[in-house]
Amino acid sequence: MKTAELEVVESQNKKEKPTQDQIPFGTTFTDHMFTMDYVEGEGWQEPKIIPYQPLTLDPAAVIFHYGQTVFEGLKAYRTKDNRILLFRPEKNFQRLNLSSERLSIPPIDEEQVLGYLTRLIQLEKDWVPETAGTSLYIRPFIIATEPNLAVGPAKTYKFMIILSPVGSYFPGGIKPVIINVEDQFTRAVKGGTGMAKTAGNYSSGYQAQANAKKSGNADVLWLDGIHKKYIEEVGSMNIFFKIKGEIVTPELNGSILKGITRMSIIELLNKWDIPVVERRISIDELYQAYEEGAVEEVFGTGTAAVISPVGELNWLGKKMIFNNHEIGELSQRLYDEITGIQTGKREDLYGWTIEVE
Amino acid sequence: MKTAELEVVESQNKKEKPTQDQIPFGTTFTDHMFTMDYVEGEGWQEPKIIPYQPLTLDPAAVIFHYGQTVFEGLKAYRTKDNRILLFRPEKNFQRLNLSSERLSIPPIDEEQVLGYLTRLIQLEKDWVPETAGTSLYIRPFIIATEPNLAVGPAKTYKFMIILSPVGSYFPGGIKPVIINVEDQFTRAVKGGTGMAKTAGNYSSGYQAQANAKKSGNADVLWLDGIHKKYIEEVGSMNIFFKIKGEIVTPELNGSILKGITRMSIIELLNKWDIPVVERRISIDELYQAYEEGAVEEVFGTGTAAVISPVGELNWLGKKMIFNNHEIGELSQRLYDEITGIQTGKREDLYGWTIEVE
Ligand SMILES: Cc1ncc(COP(=O)(O)O)c(C=O)c1O
Ligand SMILES: Cc1ncc(COP(=O)(O)O)c(C=O)c1O
Repeated sequence: MKTAELEVVESQNKKEKPTQDQIPFGTTFTDHMFTMDYVEGEGWQEPKIIPYQPLTLDPAAVIFHYGQTVFEGLKAYRTKDNRILLFRPEKNFQRLNLSSERLSIPPIDEEQVLGYLTRLIQLEKDWVPETAGTSLYIRPFIIATEPNLAVGPAKTYKFMIILSPVGSYFPGGIKPVIINVEDQFTRAVKGGTGMAKTAGNYSSGYQAQANAKKSGNADVLWLDGIHKKYIEEVGSMNIFFKIKGEIVTPELNGSILKGITRMSIIELLNKWDIPVVERRISIDELYQAYEEGAVEEVFGTGTAAVISPVGELNWLGKKMIFNNHEIGELSQRLYDEITGIQTGKREDLYGWTIEVE
Repeated sequence: MKTAELEVVESQNKKEKPTQDQIPFGTTFTDHMFTMDYVEGEGWQEPKIIPYQPLTLDPAAVIFHYGQTVFEGLKAYRTKDNRILLFRPEKNFQRLNLSSERLSIPPIDEEQVLGYLTRLIQLEKDWVPETAGTSLYIRPFIIATEPNLAVGPAKTYKFMIILSPVGSYFPGGIKPVIINVEDQFTRAVKGGTGMAKTAGNYSSGYQAQANAKKSGNADVLWLDGIHKKYIEEVGSMNIFFKIKGEIVTPELNGSILKGITRMSIIELLNKWDIPVVERRISIDELYQAYEEGAVEEVFGTGTAAVISPVGELNWLGKKMIFNNHEIGELSQRLYDEITGIQTGKREDLYGWTIEVE
């Protein structure tokens, strides 16, 4: 990996690390961050690891006005024998470039950036927590920095990686969530930005999520924007259904994010010879299968929780309860296998992990 | 207006003003800006006019990751007798609050903020250019500033107003534009954020706009996201058609921005007893009317150009040429009336302008 020109400025002022099992998500950051700048005609330049610090931007920067930005989310895990593992990080940088293409942002060199990330985590290795279920959350992102109110792609960008230690998603053991099927608001539509990890896709869901929470739900299940009928995904998770022994997940149709956990689960199910199919599935079909008693398990998948069993779906006043609000057998098996691989407890038969030495 | 607590810090380092008729849009800013901060539980506070300066934000600020932000665009015009006029600014702050609601951003006090804007423009009055067609562009915007990677509304926000002198949109006289009817990408859909002025709606159009430009078009005409059939709007303009003497513009359906120029034009046409109707109109219907020779004028409307005649639409290889690539009579009449009122050349019969004294 070409990380030669990387400049490293060490912080002289190290922060105190939080108590490992009480870390709220996303508000504590490590001592350093990675930054790199893009200038049109010159490319990405000046890769640097510097003390975590505020950004200084012109108020006319494109990011503030037209939202030209993409991001990623992945984690570093500490193993029992004190190694640090990344889970399929190359997939995140591939997806970052796919998102960038949609947002007219210049691509990064995936391999090079993975090298920079590795250096950053080496420097911050004491920030990777060790308690079960904890990890170091990694947030790479790119923002358009050019000060220009004309609508159009910027000529300058900043790529950054910040790191945040996170506590266990399920501190008291895995707990199935209650989710509302959103019938008013839309997250994404064919031809839009749904398959990209870009800022605007997230704040556009706040109203629906607030409504869902008011009525006791943890999040929303989005339906497609055209028919308001086909199941897409949850806020930050893809979704799977086990129906009569077969695993069904919505197909990638341009408006769903191609989750790396989703991809890994499909690969595992194939290895395990468990039937899995990516196809369109409507909420009516699900409800009908539910009424027939055919829905055996429902779970969301994503970097945050890996597997998040869905105990209940609320849809237009109808309530579907799955597996008696308990985690299903397959959900548990998938969770154990993936978290086992991530934390080095199980053998990585698939070459999914990369060790940060 | 309660602008009592406003703090004003004057710049000690005034910039040189650009040559009035050669100002590119959106890259030159005045000496001062307005800022005000929101803290949950405390409300909007510390309104300030300060020297134009970079913003300092935590890299984890919500704006960078989840795009929680809204903006507005309006202009200040200099009259022949050296007065400065704003055009329906209260409508912009009303719309800002509508956008904020959609993005779960706390509302501002519209009247108070209009007072602050007036003070800012008083201070910057020498920046309002005087050459015909020039103006001072006003960009109010709100960004979520809380450093928090958890997906959800921020607890802190910054409201700002920056000002940018702009040259004439049509320096060589009004020139009809060529526009591509976008058939792949989607701008907005029912249940989404299309009716809000929020960052993500703009960068999501960059790819389509770049494609359109490659084939000689100035911008794209968006179709609805559901049927890819009904006409919505252009990049930053609403759209009007004169068909057999009747003016037709797409109805506000939740995915179109409620343009203030659009609103003013509908009001003018009503006053002038010219039939105008807001309704769904499909691209097929337009094409059929075009083939019958019934489409008399087509024009876009927005703060930037006020009226931008459309000389040509390209749709799936078909070309529609309107009014021989010349500005139509009604387009000209509307342009003259609105720009006349904006610049004090014509009497403001409608109470649309506010003078900054
Ligand atoms: C919209 C959305 N869908 C799905 C996912 C799950 O993707 P992954 O498994 O790569 O974390 C995420 C989170 O990353 C997301 O933001
Ligand atoms: C998407 C969009 N549509 C329409 C308009 C026109 O609105 P207005 O007439 O208020 O400038 C704008 C620009 O403001 C816009 O951004």
